[in-house]
Amino acid sequence: MNSKRKLIYEGKAKILYEGPEPGTLIQYFKDDATAFNGEKKAQLEGKGVINNRISEFVMTRLNQIGITNHFIKRLNLREQLIREVEIVPLEVVVRNVAAGSIAKRLGLEEGTPLPRSIIEFYYKKDELNDPMVSEEHITAFNWATTQEMDEMLATAIRVNDFLCGMFSAVGITLVDFKIEFGRIYENDFSRVILADEISPDSCRLWDTATGEKLDKDRFRRDMGNVIESYTEVARRLGIMKDMPTVIQGGLH
Amino acid sequence: MNSKRKLIYEGKAKILYEGPEPGTLIQYFKDDATAFNGEKKAQLEGKGVINNRISEFVMTRLNQIGITNHFIKRLNLREQLIREVEIVPLEVVVRNVAAGSIAKRLGLEEGTPLPRSIIEFYYKKDELNDPMVSEEHITAFNWATTQEMDEMLATAIRVNDFLCGMFSAVGITLVDFKIEFGRIYENDFSRVILADEISPDSCRLWDTATGEKLDKDRFRRDMGNVIESYTEVARRLGIMKDMPTVIQGGLH
Ligand SMILES: Nc1ncnc2c1ncn2[C@@H]1O[C@H](COP(=O)(O)OP(=O)(O)OP(=O)(O)O)[C@@H](O)[C@H]1O
Ligand SMILES: Nc1ncnc2c1ncn2[C@@H]1O[C@H](COP(=O)(O)OP(=O)(O)OP(=O)(O)O)[C@@H](O)[C@H]1O
Ligand SMILES: [Mg+2]
Ligand SMILES: [Mg+2]
Repeated sequence: MNSKRKLIYEGKAKILYEGPEPGTLIQYFKDDATAFNGEKKAQLEGKGVINNRISEFVMTRLNQIGITNHFIKRLNLREQLIREVEIVPLEVVVRNVAAGSIAKRLGLEEGTPLPRSIIEFYYKKDELNDPMVSEEHITAFNWATTQEMDEMLATAIRVNDFLCGMFSAVGITLVDFKIEFGRIYENDFSRVILADEISPDSCRLWDTATGEKLDKDRFRRDMGNVIESYTEVARRLGIMKDMPTVIQGGLH
Repeated sequence: MNSKRKLIYEGKAKILYEGPEPGTLIQYFKDDATAFNGEKKAQLEGKGVINNRISEFVMTRLNQIGITNHFIKRLNLREQLIREVEIVPLEVVVRNVAAGSIAKRLGLEEGTPLPRSIIEFYYKKDELNDPMVSEEHITAFNWATTQEMDEMLATAIRVNDFLCGMFSAVGITLVDFKIEFGRIYENDFSRVILADEISPDSCRLWDTATGEKLDKDRFRRDMGNVIESYTEVARRLGIMKDMPTVIQGGLH
């Protein structure tokens, strides 16, 4: 790792460094796990390596079906080259089954299939605890334009279809997931593309046969075997075969 | 009051009785004031009488400009005849200035004018504390159809325009308000019309010159002079002149 390169942003789970060319960044996946807006913290050895791979796997395939995203190429175990975007300050959540906040909010039992997929928006603002917002707030405060909202909604639905297919093929139910979008400027126009990551940190993934959770809820809810579960997801997707042993691997 | 008539529903602020004809109800305005989902309670002598009048005043004029609503006629000091509707389980909130929950949620100072009017939806469910929801939840759970949403949105905007005009004419700033809608069935079709009430219980009304609150926040925030403020709103609207003295009036 070139220690001279410029740090752009250090988040809770990833670090962004200046990339080799203008308009690119290096996304470094840390082992840090956080929940409840950073209140709960831990180091999960190997998480960064697995998430780098899973996100690479997903983003590559999404690019192939025309869902443009920031991923360019993986650089090493923990890093990937990405396009720099201007992040839209929204977390876009797609839900297929009730779990987490929607279960509590609407009084649904966890595990209840939703009548149809539901898309939610949360305003990315740690100080406010990422409040849920609707299109009205988003367009009124100019966090995104109506056109960007349309693009993000359409893309979110496509990503959901793709991920449902991908995970169902390996015996995993996609309960919900969170994605982020960012603007890229081309000539005088801008458009939004998918950015950030797609990994067990940002999805709820349940083993379809047993209901076992294979995602970050194992960490949030102190269920143990977090890395084992992330690894299981990677293994089922066929990613492990070209990945060095990450568990107890000293891959820092 | 005919004590034999059938009680249909007793809410926190109003009682609904069976009306004289099918498809009608009598809406009785109580003096009970509640806040924070019923946690805080009081009797405010005369409130029911004033709200019955203010709601009559507003609903009559809305009917005149083609905003169909449930109001038929006022029967006496505390009662009005209304059309029975099937209430859509949503509170539709229109905001012009940041106050109350949106100020907290989005970290805005109370009193900040919003960049444009914002419409919010809350799911009417006391057990869940009326959570904010978006069109996605509403249509997924069939609380309202897309077409009903369109009608409610369009009506909410018109009501806001009308109320802004009405209150601005008497030196009052309409900060926000809550309305409810209900379905009426005609032949094989249904449509949604405005129902419930429009009063200082359901609006935030600030004296434009002094900023003084003339609404239910005086009760929520223990500011005193609640009835005096409601009366001031009625007085400015010219309603008091044909209303008996309600303050300390023994109008039970
Ligand atoms: N292609 C990209 N260009 C610029 N920024 C990006 C890109 N992809 C993701 N980001 C941003 O980089 C950061 C990744 O760091 P991390 O996910 O650890 O942040 P975080 O602690 O979760 O905080 P945040 O609430 O901002 O996500 C996020 O702020 C994310 O929005
Ligand atoms: N035209 C109408 N037909 C049928 N129901 C109505 C009509 N107008 C209002 N309602 C309903 O009548 C009730 C009025 O009572 P009140 O406002 O005191 O209830 P509340 O305690 O506020 O409870 P809620 O949360 O249901 O509003 C409300 O449930 C309201 O939705
Ligand atoms: Mg993040
Ligand atoms: Mg009510």
